[in-house]
Amino acid sequence: MPVIFWLVPLSSLLALGFAYYFFKNMMGYDEGTDMMKQIAAHVRKGAGAYLRQQYKVVAIVFAIITIIFAIMAYVLGIQNPWVPFAFLTGGAFSGLAGFFGMKAATFASARVTNACRTSLDGGLRLAFRSGAVMGLTVVGLVLLDISAWFLVLNHFIPEAEMGMKLLTITATMLTFGMGASTQALFARVGGGIYTKAADVGADLVGKVEAGIPEDDPRNPATIADNVGDNVGDVAGMGADLFESFAGSILATALLGAAAFIGFGAEMQFNAVIAPMLIAAVGTMLSILGVFLVRTKEGATQKQLLKSLGIGVNTSAALIVVFSLLILYALGLPNYWGIWGSIVIGLFAGIGIGQSTEYFTASAFRPTRNIAEASTTGPATLIIKGIGTGLISASVPLGIIVVGITLAFGFSSGFQYDAASLNMGLYGIGIAAVGLLSTLGITLATDAYGPVADNAGGNAEMCQLGEEVRSRTDALDALGNTTAATGKGFAIGSAALTALALLAAYFEEVKVMIVKFLDRPDMPINNIPAIDAQFIDFIHHYDIHLMNPIVIVGILIGVLSVFLFSGMTMNAVGRAAQKMVDEVRRQFRDIPGIMEGKAEPDYARCVAISTKGAQQEMLVPSLIALLIPVIVGLIFGVAGVSGLLVGTITSGFAMAIFMANAGGAWDNAKKYIEEGNLGGKGSENHKASVVGDMIGDPFKDTSGPSLNILIKLMVMASVVTVGVAVSYSLF
Amino acid sequence: MPVIFWLVPLSSLLALGFAYYFFKNMMGYDEGTDMMKQIAAHVRKGAGAYLRQQYKVVAIVFAIITIIFAIMAYVLGIQNPWVPFAFLTGGAFSGLAGFFGMKAATFASARVTNACRTSLDGGLRLAFRSGAVMGLTVVGLVLLDISAWFLVLNHFIPEAEMGMKLLTITATMLTFGMGASTQALFARVGGGIYTKAADVGADLVGKVEAGIPEDDPRNPATIADNVGDNVGDVAGMGADLFESFAGSILATALLGAAAFIGFGAEMQFNAVIAPMLIAAVGTMLSILGVFLVRTKEGATQKQLLKSLGIGVNTSAALIVVFSLLILYALGLPNYWGIWGSIVIGLFAGIGIGQSTEYFTASAFRPTRNIAEASTTGPATLIIKGIGTGLISASVPLGIIVVGITLAFGFSSGFQYDAASLNMGLYGIGIAAVGLLSTLGITLATDAYGPVADNAGGNAEMCQLGEEVRSRTDALDALGNTTAATGKGFAIGSAALTALALLAAYFEEVKVMIVKFLDRPDMPINNIPAIDAQFIDFIHHYDIHLMNPIVIVGILIGVLSVFLFSGMTMNAVGRAAQKMVDEVRRQFRDIPGIMEGKAEPDYARCVAISTKGAQQEMLVPSLIALLIPVIVGLIFGVAGVSGLLVGTITSGFAMAIFMANAGGAWDNAKKYIEEGNLGGKGSENHKASVVGDMIGDPFKDTSGPSLNILIKLMVMASVVTVGVAVSYSLF
Repeated sequence: MPVIFWLVPLSSLLALGFAYYFFKNMMGYDEGTDMMKQIAAHVRKGAGAYLRQQYKVVAIVFAIITIIFAIMAYVLGIQNPWVPFAFLTGGAFSGLAGFFGMKAATFASARVTNACRTSLDGGLRLAFRSGAVMGLTVVGLVLLDISAWFLVLNHFIPEAEMGMKLLTITATMLTFGMGASTQALFARVGGGIYTKAADVGADLVGKVEAGIPEDDPRNPATIADNVGDNVGDVAGMGADLFESFAGSILATALLGAAAFIGFGAEMQFNAVIAPMLIAAVGTMLSILGVFLVRTKEGATQKQLLKSLGIGVNTSAALIVVFSLLILYALGLPNYWGIWGSIVIGLFAGIGIGQSTEYFTASAFRPTRNIAEASTTGPATLIIKGIGTGLISASVPLGIIVVGITLAFGFSSGFQYDAASLNMGLYGIGIAAVGLLSTLGITLATDAYGPVADNAGGNAEMCQLGEEVRSRTDALDALGNTTAATGKGFAIGSAALTALALLAAYFEEVKVMIVKFLDRPDMPINNIPAIDAQFIDFIHHYDIHLMNPIVIVGILIGVLSVFLFSGMTMNAVGRAAQKMVDEVRRQFRDIPGIMEGKAEPDYARCVAISTKGAQQEMLVPSLIALLIPVIVGLIFGVAGVSGLLVGTITSGFAMAIFMANAGGAWDNAKKYIEEGNLGGKGSENHKASVVGDMIGDPFKDTSGPSLNILIKLMVMASVVTVGVAVSYSLF
Repeated sequence: MPVIFWLVPLSSLLALGFAYYFFKNMMGYDEGTDMMKQIAAHVRKGAGAYLRQQYKVVAIVFAIITIIFAIMAYVLGIQNPWVPFAFLTGGAFSGLAGFFGMKAATFASARVTNACRTSLDGGLRLAFRSGAVMGLTVVGLVLLDISAWFLVLNHFIPEAEMGMKLLTITATMLTFGMGASTQALFARVGGGIYTKAADVGADLVGKVEAGIPEDDPRNPATIADNVGDNVGDVAGMGADLFESFAGSILATALLGAAAFIGFGAEMQFNAVIAPMLIAAVGTMLSILGVFLVRTKEGATQKQLLKSLGIGVNTSAALIVVFSLLILYALGLPNYWGIWGSIVIGLFAGIGIGQSTEYFTASAFRPTRNIAEASTTGPATLIIKGIGTGLISASVPLGIIVVGITLAFGFSSGFQYDAASLNMGLYGIGIAAVGLLSTLGITLATDAYGPVADNAGGNAEMCQLGEEVRSRTDALDALGNTTAATGKGFAIGSAALTALALLAAYFEEVKVMIVKFLDRPDMPINNIPAIDAQFIDFIHHYDIHLMNPIVIVGILIGVLSVFLFSGMTMNAVGRAAQKMVDEVRRQFRDIPGIMEGKAEPDYARCVAISTKGAQQEMLVPSLIALLIPVIVGLIFGVAGVSGLLVGTITSGFAMAIFMANAGGAWDNAKKYIEEGNLGGKGSENHKASVVGDMIGDPFKDTSGPSLNILIKLMVMASVVTVGVAVSYSLF
């Protein structure tokens, strides 16, 4: 193993080490008054209870899937024999990252509130570094998993002719993403339903019916609402990006092994480890970036945003330089072109984040127009929000269109013969890796949000002084801005990763057939003869647009997106209804709640949200897992190829529509609450509250769940490719 | 020309003759009291004014496009020389159909009201036969256009080897659909914006602010609202189905010419005229069906529905039998299989209609659940509506998936070699023809709706007696049911037609290259050698899913759907806002309106809606027209192929989502108004009114406009294929 490779495990250990350091350091701070401690303990207990319940269900699902994979591998022989083990490590590591991230976040909130009693800078740094625990744990565990398995497989898989060994290793490793995908599915769907059931439930009875403010301790659902922020935005977001980070690196490694197969063993090896190295260096730069984040007392929103920006942007700027150095050091041919693809990936990420900001922040016209539509009532506000949300989807789609055209073009030299095609696909993969390389710090800014939000909630519930609350409010408002760009980043990276995974899927089909099914009758048994087998491959599987089976697959892909979004949407409605009933019951049955004399039964609300989320997440999740298998069984590889394309393209658009419409409604409401258009309590405000509630499942449940769906469908197709190849009806 | 072909022009003349007969007959009835006449005149005048204005704009667009086509044909030589002329006839015929249909509908409404003063059966028959004027004019003019051009081209295009003549004729004729598509685009988008701007505007000020009922003569926007029903549902729907009817026949003729190229001249000819004959016989059966519709006094909703059903179902059942006879008479090979495809098409249409009914009628759970969600306010009602609407899209998508799999399979014998592929694609085309064959009568049931609606409005405004109004109400309620299934039918047929057009597009690419560009360097200059050139074609244009250009195209297709829906949605919002301002102004400035002492200025509201619709329709329409050309210029045939697939699949899903969510909210409101869940005036009712208003642009503007988008994109790509082939960047 060349020395440079050891950067990967090293960066992993550094990331995990610093995560531990930030955690320990944070734990050294004081949680404040007894009441602050008590409320934080409530939230922590609720989050812990949710996670335990969630992991119980997930463990059962994992056990079943592992058995199925084992049967496929050892009985039917249509599955890679390493998959059952790797599936478990991927799932376990992702779960672990969620566990630590949530622990850090829930331990941090009261400490951040307490730090805000002294200074804004102290609060910001503490909150941000708690977020960094999540960010660094995620990237650290991904890199640990990848480097460990790469070493193991490199040791065990025998040498083979003409680059087949590396192709086999990377094709095997890609399937490891399945564990992370499955974990992410439940984290996003379950967490998303939980958080919005609690939120909508709390708002409907608390704000609308009882007329008490948000985060009021008299509202029985308020703790569940705070738990939801952690469950949805920390654990869910973390698992989502864990999957993207792992998926983009693994897909690109496989695409590298395929593209560089004719360039000699060393070059092929270097192309495979290039994405790992970029991620490793990006991780070290993220750690550096975290230390750069600080602010001064009385900082404005703009200054706070700049403080975070310094950390994030420095890491991003440095990775641009370092990735060129890495590619140069590896001596890859056309390294300028490949570097161009990485830069394109980074710019695409920034562009999508900016467009999310533009379409959802009240500083810009779209959200203002939505707010102004409230003057003719909720109907026009909602029409405007949906219209604007639909339009807004076209910008990130356009960015991805330009992005993949250029990322492909730079790496392929804008050539379209078969060999260049493989180079270009490697370029698309490495663009995704570039976008995600500094995930350690970008995820820290995401996970920072719920910490600040909970800190604000804690201050509110404990009725701390004006000064403290203005500090926590400032941190919270910053969190809302980072949440918007963070969502854009998550969706954009999911789309790019999914496209890289899609390209890798086709490689997987070839490798699987040759290596594991041993079907010399198929015209693709001679992989190194790239050009000829490429055409044969397309012809054999008819993955072209004149084949109705491909169109059928695409239609099923679109169908899946609509069905899945609709089901998660309705799931929130049903779970929220239960919460509404419970809150109403407590207001009715527990005397003295409204006067603040009796404590509501927070735990029951937490339990109801937990149970509701667990019940509701199962069916949509199983559908997402089963559709690729069923389509594979009926329509084979052509059908599955279409399915993936349909899911990715329409799922991406739908995810942005939902995230942006939801974010815009949220901020339109806040804009009115700031005193515009009549301010709090006006008819316009009431209309905007309706919009905000509709936006809740849009932006925090159905939208983000689609990030997972588009990646999971590909992963599930990758691991069950043996089924589609061996048993398909058509 | 074989004798059997003359059935086509004959059926056309029969349809036009009966349309004239029904119109004349209707005109013989009395319009009733002076006030009834006056109100009908208001609506007629408004509709006429709208149509004149609309046709002026469309004439300019047609002039520009014709010039462009002429340059492409005669200067650049990248366009079929017949296209400029054919483009004009298609557009003119479609416009003519809209004109006659609207004339009939606006002359009929008061007469139907008046007939209802005597009997329910009289009212039903009159209303239905007025609708039949539209239905028969549409199919008559389509068949006239097609048969005339077929005779002309058959005369002028020289004989060529090996079936090339028919391939050329049908490829040329397909481009004629462009005129109908362009006309339909403006009719649907403009009409859709008009009708909902008037409706939402009237509701917002009239119902919500002033608290007066619908169709109250004191509301200045009420005439505009009634005009809108005609503009949107008669002219818009008619142009939409004109396009589907023409497109499905023309696409299938071309697919037939390609599939049967190796079967000898006679067989190829018969395959080409088969779709025309099926449409011709279906048209004659439609006329028969119209005569079967009658009812008795005091009929219940169920009985009324049955009365319509007898007409529609008899025609449908007979076409099943007759189409088998036609195929047998033509002696086509595998005529049982092709007949199976036709039957599948018919069943798919029925299935989609039924699913629309299930998801939007208050007799079933989905709409009831949405209504029940009103108990926790508008937010939950809207969440539920969107969730259910999204889920509902999966059913018609599933039906189309099964439908095209079987339609393809029956005609191809479930074989996937190149020759069978062409057969299978012919099967998909003829399934669309089967679905649309009895359009004469199904469109009559659609156009019946606005006539009945306007008749009800007239009765309401003239404050006719209870008995008369109960009769018009019964007719109106029936219209609402047929509107729901009619919408499903329109979307389903648009999707099947678009898929047939897509298959035809690939044929068009080949024919264009060989015939008009004379590029022997391309590997597809030997069309009769189907198998070899087929693979070459795919390879040359790389229209497979591993090509990122194809994926880019699909992404742009999805982008177009979201952008177009969002723009039409916001257009309604803006146009409605102007209407709201005007109605508020009239209530303020014209004293005595509310007391019924002064007449509001109806004409001004009509003018505002007209102007608003014309202004707002231009940008989205131009985008729809330009995107295929721009994608062709940049990304070539591979990009355009992807674009079409992306647009059709996601546009279809989005259209159903919008139509069903909108329909369900509408009926949830009506369900509450019937006295359920608190009835009229309750908080629940208010919540449902919000849902209904949001649903208005969903179901009547953005949703139906997508029907056009998915067909128009293909048509625009077909006529500009020379651009993509000759000048593309990639």
